[in-house]
Amino acid sequence: MSSIYSGSIKISIFGESHSEAIGAVLDNIPAGEKIIFDEIIVQMQRRAPGYDGISTCRKEIDVPEIISGISNGYTTGAPICAVIKNNNACSEDYKSLEDLIRPGHSDYPAYVRYKGFNDKRGGGHLSGRLTACLTFCGAICRQILEQHGVIIGAHVYSIFDVFDKKFEGNLSDELLINLSRERFPVINFDKKEVMIEKILQAKKDGDSVGGIIECAIKNIPPGIGSPIFDGVENKISSLIFAIPAIKGIEFGAGFDATKMLGSQNNDPFVILDEKITTETNNHGGILGGISSGMPIIFRCAVKPTPSILKTQRTVNIKSKSVQKISITGRHDPCIVPRAVPVVESAAALAILDLFKEAGLL
Amino acid sequence: MSSIYSGSIKISIFGESHSEAIGAVLDNIPAGEKIIFDEIIVQMQRRAPGYDGISTCRKEIDVPEIISGISNGYTTGAPICAVIKNNNACSEDYKSLEDLIRPGHSDYPAYVRYKGFNDKRGGGHLSGRLTACLTFCGAICRQILEQHGVIIGAHVYSIFDVFDKKFEGNLSDELLINLSRERFPVINFDKKEVMIEKILQAKKDGDSVGGIIECAIKNIPPGIGSPIFDGVENKISSLIFAIPAIKGIEFGAGFDATKMLGSQNNDPFVILDEKITTETNNHGGILGGISSGMPIIFRCAVKPTPSILKTQRTVNIKSKSVQKISITGRHDPCIVPRAVPVVESAAALAILDLFKEAGLL
Amino acid sequence: MSSIYSGSIKISIFGESHSEAIGAVLDNIPAGEKIIFDEIIVQMQRRAPGYDGISTCRKEIDVPEIISGISNGYTTGAPICAVIKNNNACSEDYKSLEDLIRPGHSDYPAYVRYKGFNDKRGGGHLSGRLTACLTFCGAICRQILEQHGVIIGAHVYSIFDVFDKKFEGNLSDELLINLSRERFPVINFDKKEVMIEKILQAKKDGDSVGGIIECAIKNIPPGIGSPIFDGVENKISSLIFAIPAIKGIEFGAGFDATKMLGSQNNDPFVILDEKITTETNNHGGILGGISSGMPIIFRCAVKPTPSILKTQRTVNIKSKSVQKISITGRHDPCIVPRAVPVVESAAALAILDLFKEAGLL
Amino acid sequence: MSSIYSGSIKISIFGESHSEAIGAVLDNIPAGEKIIFDEIIVQMQRRAPGYDGISTCRKEIDVPEIISGISNGYTTGAPICAVIKNNNACSEDYKSLEDLIRPGHSDYPAYVRYKGFNDKRGGGHLSGRLTACLTFCGAICRQILEQHGVIIGAHVYSIFDVFDKKFEGNLSDELLINLSRERFPVINFDKKEVMIEKILQAKKDGDSVGGIIECAIKNIPPGIGSPIFDGVENKISSLIFAIPAIKGIEFGAGFDATKMLGSQNNDPFVILDEKITTETNNHGGILGGISSGMPIIFRCAVKPTPSILKTQRTVNIKSKSVQKISITGRHDPCIVPRAVPVVESAAALAILDLFKEAGLL
Repeated sequence: MSSIYSGSIKISIFGESHSEAIGAVLDNIPAGEKIIFDEIIVQMQRRAPGYDGISTCRKEIDVPEIISGISNGYTTGAPICAVIKNNNACSEDYKSLEDLIRPGHSDYPAYVRYKGFNDKRGGGHLSGRLTACLTFCGAICRQILEQHGVIIGAHVYSIFDVFDKKFEGNLSDELLINLSRERFPVINFDKKEVMIEKILQAKKDGDSVGGIIECAIKNIPPGIGSPIFDGVENKISSLIFAIPAIKGIEFGAGFDATKMLGSQNNDPFVILDEKITTETNNHGGILGGISSGMPIIFRCAVKPTPSILKTQRTVNIKSKSVQKISITGRHDPCIVPRAVPVVESAAALAILDLFKEAGLL
Repeated sequence: MSSIYSGSIKISIFGESHSEAIGAVLDNIPAGEKIIFDEIIVQMQRRAPGYDGISTCRKEIDVPEIISGISNGYTTGAPICAVIKNNNACSEDYKSLEDLIRPGHSDYPAYVRYKGFNDKRGGGHLSGRLTACLTFCGAICRQILEQHGVIIGAHVYSIFDVFDKKFEGNLSDELLINLSRERFPVINFDKKEVMIEKILQAKKDGDSVGGIIECAIKNIPPGIGSPIFDGVENKISSLIFAIPAIKGIEFGAGFDATKMLGSQNNDPFVILDEKITTETNNHGGILGGISSGMPIIFRCAVKPTPSILKTQRTVNIKSKSVQKISITGRHDPCIVPRAVPVVESAAALAILDLFKEAGLL
Repeated sequence: MSSIYSGSIKISIFGESHSEAIGAVLDNIPAGEKIIFDEIIVQMQRRAPGYDGISTCRKEIDVPEIISGISNGYTTGAPICAVIKNNNACSEDYKSLEDLIRPGHSDYPAYVRYKGFNDKRGGGHLSGRLTACLTFCGAICRQILEQHGVIIGAHVYSIFDVFDKKFEGNLSDELLINLSRERFPVINFDKKEVMIEKILQAKKDGDSVGGIIECAIKNIPPGIGSPIFDGVENKISSLIFAIPAIKGIEFGAGFDATKMLGSQNNDPFVILDEKITTETNNHGGILGGISSGMPIIFRCAVKPTPSILKTQRTVNIKSKSVQKISITGRHDPCIVPRAVPVVESAAALAILDLFKEAGLL
Repeated sequence: MSSIYSGSIKISIFGESHSEAIGAVLDNIPAGEKIIFDEIIVQMQRRAPGYDGISTCRKEIDVPEIISGISNGYTTGAPICAVIKNNNACSEDYKSLEDLIRPGHSDYPAYVRYKGFNDKRGGGHLSGRLTACLTFCGAICRQILEQHGVIIGAHVYSIFDVFDKKFEGNLSDELLINLSRERFPVINFDKKEVMIEKILQAKKDGDSVGGIIECAIKNIPPGIGSPIFDGVENKISSLIFAIPAIKGIEFGAGFDATKMLGSQNNDPFVILDEKITTETNNHGGILGGISSGMPIIFRCAVKPTPSILKTQRTVNIKSKSVQKISITGRHDPCIVPRAVPVVESAAALAILDLFKEAGLL
């Protein structure tokens, strides 16, 4: 019931949307790992509002202030803590909505869960803003993983009914590296324009859209992860669902595997460059919870942004009466592109955790 | 990297497919909870091979021997341990395959992970047989949850391309209770026959099929679960992926939500019987990781059984040469129906854990 | 290997002696608990240097800046994070010692543990300064416990060879409350002067002294804690050893029990005010890891401060030669009085954790 | 509140004194470790009643039945589970005492904790018998540690007022190895006879005695363990208090350090065989929670056996009246010698856990 992840690496996330600051502690990271601050900023910017050409919000980067655990560009072995000030430049007045529980938001369950004592402004601790903390932690973890050759990249696989190409088995490192630095990463550039049109149309209608993010993790050695509770899928999924808008995840062929015969879904083993590998990758790089050495591939569903201008029906929690609600302010009509670095970050956290458990760090 | 789940309730799963026995310890269960042994057997039978009219294997129920923690039908507060003997009645000779890594199985990653020391017979600790332990633990947890009014039921939502009806918002307790005792639970009985045909056809072809299981959990009070790492989705997904064949999970509208507008996906809040609830249930009973009071609904993808008679290509791990493999023996052409009680069990474990965390036990 | 405590309540401690700041996250604290900031300051001051009439260091209180989790004097249910700036007013130049490993300090093992990358200034993350974070967390926990009637108080039981009175079975709430607000708490005031003399003599000699702290926790209901791994003793001891200078702990009669016969050490059960209790309290309020309802009593040994002016022999870690070392600067000749609130805080954390586990919060 | 230890290695202990069996799961042990079953038996015998020349109980070894995780003498990487049948050969009739809570025992707190549902026969899950499970796990861990050169040995440092020699800094491997196979290990053999006399005298008087066990762990590399919550002292103490009769623990000079000056207690660093080490070992091999490379030394206090023939006063929990109690049956007048292998086992578990965390396995 806490915001602490306690695997082989540990993460503590704190802060509320309108408290003094938000931040994170990343703990049990080995000493002596080189961390480039600018690379953290690259990822923070990808998640920040106003950079994807969609959000109208004033551009403002969340610059994390590292207050411990990194010195002279290297990890000291002490917990890494960063604090991100809440300047609230993009915040609007939530006062008027105060007693109206926003549909698709956690206002109502949070009210019950915290007996009304939770900080309701901007969603408090349940705000999507807290994903900045995940992004910070992920930005550190991926730098460490890169030293081990691991590359993580994701793209916007779909927006509403517009689909990009899927990752194919034979992924190049270069493709992933490029994606991992883009603000609206797609494989097929032509589709990006159509996606943006969809988003702008939704915005015009006072509505919102969601989509699917596909993520790949390359150069994982075989033999990482464990059966039953500590498998690669358990780990990744439990961290991916830390992102508020995610409603589904699938690995490899995923749900499509249910429409395949065993003989189609099984990936034949072959020898390539004297190494054992599989010809296809329906298993998404994971068999029995353990990495196979093939790229780990997963897709996750991002629901349409719940904050919309369009009038909705809801309940006033004080008067217990049904009322109308229209959520004004500068809300993203689609958070999928901004969620891409967060998904990559959650993946980086999961993989670094598995590396640590496997004694590879 | 262990087979221990360490939430508010704790589970330790042990055993290998061909070791002396398999078993489980279920720990931190309150004292004084009434446990009916026959109800455990009902669930063990649903999972056991040979009961669904498909598997040809000799019928044999895994009867768990409870060696501590339950006395005179009540929990004593001490860890509940059960041991299930391995009689191997259904096992065939794995000797001939020994050096061939089976496609779709964990043979290869497990070989690397355990440096060749793992018990390879029948898949060892990675065998689907270990789900009997999950089912045992789940059968206890669901009895305790029932005392709190919670009902868990799942059905075979699809086999290959044949689909049952989906759960609708207004689920009756009766429907779920009935499903939770069936061996091949479906909502629309007509579809069951078509599904069985698909399975038998696959079998005839020396092939296999998978499908989707849909699970509902009713009568959860609002306010259970937490944002970020300890939400209902994190918990359920991390336990559902303890089942070897699962490759995807989605909550509520899930992946379909990505093709909806925000105004369609948001569930309007209404007052019903003086309680706050939602009109629809696209959110699957979970908002911001916290229960809303609506039924928790999720679906998970079961891949087609990897063991098939059909000839496949694979690699001999000793000689590193490509060879042909045909897996003989009595393998299920479809494990979806047998996986239903395991999915319900994983859900029961997750929910009891959340209840314990919330101080409701 | 982290600075995260992950029980039913969670604590993350971060910072280094000379980094930007130190701080803590206290997580999984229920919403709606009243927290008085001034009461936190009372405890922070007791731990701060320069307040006990011994330390010559400039008086300076560490005022924690609460950046989330408390709003309008009540916990919001979100993680409580506080940051304490490092002003370094009391720090001296560690440069000259840099390559000399200080006897009695963790310089050498930390150097190996962190491959030389640890922040060595002021002991870095291993500095006694980090106990300010424990004190902050404890100051919150004890306020919540007080709402449940639980009172925690400790005193300086000994300095070198000067001993205060021991706690006796029949402790008054008043005594404990008074002790818990004192800067040099003793039961027998006459002994305090003798203790201070001992300390000042050591200081004059360029030396240091240690002592024993005795702590009592009253009004714990019977039935809290568990046998084997999660008992009251396991919990308290594992948190007490978070305080750097502690080298031993004993509960109830402790080591003295080894010189008693069973018939002397066993505490007879009696009925008092219609409640079951024991006549004596050799068991220190804990039997089989579970609270008996009697006051929980423990004592812990604080070693003499390792930083002394007196010349000592040590090793230069770079040149690997034996050298002389004299540690100048304003070091406490005795940290026992300042450690009292830290010991109470560790006790408060342990007890709140046990209360949460027992479903009492 | 469970009997699961969840560090880098995991232990689940189950069973009740008079249930079908007791047992343990030892999880996250690497595959390919050689385990000699007879070495397990050596340790089980040291703990078993009737072997130390004191207990009159019928000799009977608890032979653990390994049901998974070890195959052909090597760990398979799967959880190691062992079951030890309860033959109850030494059990007497607890019926007559049923409603009388035994002084010094956990009967009363357990009754409250488990609402009367706990298995009261022989102390149920809180019985000292459960230390057989710790011994089993420890016997495996020490074999693995021996492969890394680590040697663990303990001796009976005192019985009542009779004291053996203390460990001195310069311990030989041979001494520790010899101690670790003895049933009544002492350094000074002359003292053993005097100790046995004390025990037999207590027995004759219908009384009991306790004592102190001193344990040494040699050949630990420097740099193992962490500051604050995951230090060597936190780890060892939290596992040592899993042994029911332990009431205190101290490391190195321990409580005696409080009567030393800083200049006496600080251990000067020196160079020996080109390695950095300390001349003396008041720090007990641990500085700031991290191993220094010197032997880890700790002592723990074992209280006198609470079960005595001598008449005591107690309470009848049903009638709430004060009554007399005399505990008949074959109880040990002193459990200190039998506790020695359990203490070594707890130490082995702690150290293997720290090795795993440090990536040394």
